[in-house]
Amino acid sequence: MTEINKKGSEGSGKYVVIEKLKKKFSGILASSENAGGTLASTSLLLEGIHFNLVYFPLAHLGYKAVVSSISGLYSKGARPENVSVNLGISTRHRIEDIETIFQGVEFACRKYTLRLSDIHVDSSLTGLTIAVTSSGGQMLPYNVNSKPAENDLICVTGSLGAAYMGLHILERERKVFEETGGSQPQLAGYEAVIGKQLKPDLPVSALEEIVGNISGITSINVLREGLSSELIGICLNNSTGCRIYFEKVPVSVETRKVADEFGIEPIISALNGGDDYQFIFTAPLSEKEKIDHVAGVTIIGHITGKEEGCNLVLHDGSLAELKAPGWEGEDSGE
Amino acid sequence: MTEINKKGSEGSGKYVVIEKLKKKFSGILASSENAGGTLASTSLLLEGIHFNLVYFPLAHLGYKAVVSSISGLYSKGARPENVSVNLGISTRHRIEDIETIFQGVEFACRKYTLRLSDIHVDSSLTGLTIAVTSSGGQMLPYNVNSKPAENDLICVTGSLGAAYMGLHILERERKVFEETGGSQPQLAGYEAVIGKQLKPDLPVSALEEIVGNISGITSINVLREGLSSELIGICLNNSTGCRIYFEKVPVSVETRKVADEFGIEPIISALNGGDDYQFIFTAPLSEKEKIDHVAGVTIIGHITGKEEGCNLVLHDGSLAELKAPGWEGEDSGE
Repeated sequence: MTEINKKGSEGSGKYVVIEKLKKKFSGILASSENAGGTLASTSLLLEGIHFNLVYFPLAHLGYKAVVSSISGLYSKGARPENVSVNLGISTRHRIEDIETIFQGVEFACRKYTLRLSDIHVDSSLTGLTIAVTSSGGQMLPYNVNSKPAENDLICVTGSLGAAYMGLHILERERKVFEETGGSQPQLAGYEAVIGKQLKPDLPVSALEEIVGNISGITSINVLREGLSSELIGICLNNSTGCRIYFEKVPVSVETRKVADEFGIEPIISALNGGDDYQFIFTAPLSEKEKIDHVAGVTIIGHITGKEEGCNLVLHDGSLAELKAPGWEGEDSGE
Repeated sequence: MTEINKKGSEGSGKYVVIEKLKKKFSGILASSENAGGTLASTSLLLEGIHFNLVYFPLAHLGYKAVVSSISGLYSKGARPENVSVNLGISTRHRIEDIETIFQGVEFACRKYTLRLSDIHVDSSLTGLTIAVTSSGGQMLPYNVNSKPAENDLICVTGSLGAAYMGLHILERERKVFEETGGSQPQLAGYEAVIGKQLKPDLPVSALEEIVGNISGITSINVLREGLSSELIGICLNNSTGCRIYFEKVPVSVETRKVADEFGIEPIISALNGGDDYQFIFTAPLSEKEKIDHVAGVTIIGHITGKEEGCNLVLHDGSLAELKAPGWEGEDSGE
C-alpha cells in the first residue's frame, strides 16, 4: 500500500534490503520449484505507515486489509479461500471499533467468497496493527514457475493512479481540517479517486478471463506500490529489462483531472503511486490478438534484454529510466 | 506470548472480545468442517507488548516469532513447511539489525526443517512489528474435527512456568539496569528459565510420538498464554468443564526456585504464565496406559461436564476456580 516513508535503512530502499536478505539467507529460501505447498499470503498494515485513521474509516481498513492479503495470494497463482485476521489494538479503541473493522472484513469475505478462519486480538502500545493472512488451495490455470522472456508483452488491467490521487485529496483535506480546527472536508466531486483509495476492487473476474483465455502467461503480479516499482522488481527478479510507452499507460479522466489540480503529470500517479490493486501480467507476443479481446486489459509495453534497463518511451521516442522509492541503493552491477 | 497488558477494551478480556466477534460474524466464519483448506497460521508480535528490545535479543526474536507461528499450525493439525516473514521496522534499526532478526529466523528454519517462502520489510512509525505466517500441507494423523468429551484425560508435554519466571528475571534486571544507569545484569544461575523465555523449544518429536501412538486424540493445543487461559478456552469452545490436580501440574526445580525467590507460588507460573510452547492434548481415558508410556507427557486432570466449571483440585481436595487474564467480562450464561 502507499506509504509515507518508503526508505528502509542506511540509504538502501526496502526492496534492496529484501533482495539482500534473500541473497544472504538463500540457504533456507524456498524456490519456486520447492515452494509448491505455500499457499498463504500475509499483509501487515501499520497505522501511520499504511493508513491514517483521521481519514481512513475502520470498516474500509478491514476491507482493504483483506483485499491486500488476497491480492498477494492471486499473484502467487492461488485462489484465496480462507482469511485469518490478527489485530493489535491500542487502548483508545473500543469493542465497537473492532466490530467496525470486522464489518469491513465481512464485506470483503462476502464479495470475494472467503471464509474467516481465525481471529486474534492483542493489545498494541503504539498504534493499530492489522495482519491478514489468506490461504487457498485451488491453483489458477497457469504455470507459476514460468518467467518473463524478451519480447513478452506487458499488460495491465483497469486504469492506474486513481488511488494515489485519492490519497492526495484525503491528505489535503486532513491538513485543512487540522489547520482550521475542524472544518468539514470538501470531498464532493472526488468520489471516484477517493473510492479507489479507500475501497479498492480487485479485478478477479478479469483475472479469471485472462488465465482462462491467454496461453503461456509468464508472470502475474499485483500493482500495490506503483507501476515503476513493480516493473523494476519483475525485471530484477528475472534478469530482464522492459520498455513501456507513455501514451499506453491507462490513466482515467478523473485521475487526470485531480492530477492537474495538484500540478502533477498524470502518468506520475500511475508510475509512482500505489494501491492500484490491478493485475500486471506478461505473456508471449504470439498471444497479442487474444489479449486484445479481453475487456479492460491494456498492453503497455514489452520485456527487453537486461542491458537495456527499465524505460518509459516518451512521445518523441526518447527514453526515461524508471525509478521507484524502495529501490535506492541497488547495485546495478548485480 | 506473555503480555504486559492483556486487557482488551471496556472491561472485556481479549478472548471474550474474540468470542463476541466470532458470534457476531459467524456468517462468514469457517467451521472445522469447511476450513479444510486452511493450513496457515500467523503470529503477530508487537514491540512493548510481546517483547521488550531492552533484553530481547533480535536473533532470539526472529527465532521465537517462527516458533510461535508454527506452534499455531501444529495445533491446527498440520505440519509446517514454509514460513513467510513480514517486518515493520522503525528508523532506529539498521540493515544489520534486520539481518540479525533473520539469523534467528534461519536458525528456526533449520531446526524445524522449514523453508522461507517470502520476506516483506516495511517502515514502522511506532516500533518493531513482526508477523510470521507458516503454512504446510501434510496433516498430523489425528482427526482435527474431534472434540474433548467428559472423562477425557488432559495431558501436557514438558514442564510449565519456566518462561514466565525467565521473564521475571529479565524484567527485574531491566529495572536495575535503568535505575543504576547501566549496571551489568546478573543473569548467572538463571540460564534455564531465561532460555525458555528467549529461545523456547517446541517439542515436535514428542508430538509426533503422541499422535503416532495414542488413538482417538480429541484436541491438541499449544500453551502460549498460560495453562488456565488455554483450559478455559478449550472448555468454552467445547461446552465442557475441567478438573486439574495441583500436584500433577509439572513445574521444574529451576522454576520453583525462581518462583520462591519472587515470593510466587510455583504453580501460578504454570497457570498464569505463558510462552511455554508445550502441547496440551486430550484423549480418551482408555488410552491412559499408552499415554503413560510416552516420555515427557504428564496427565494433569480430566474433562468434566460444563456445569462443573474449570477447577484446580488442591491438596485437601477442595476446588479453586481457574481464572485467566483475557477472559474478564465473559458471560457465564452462554
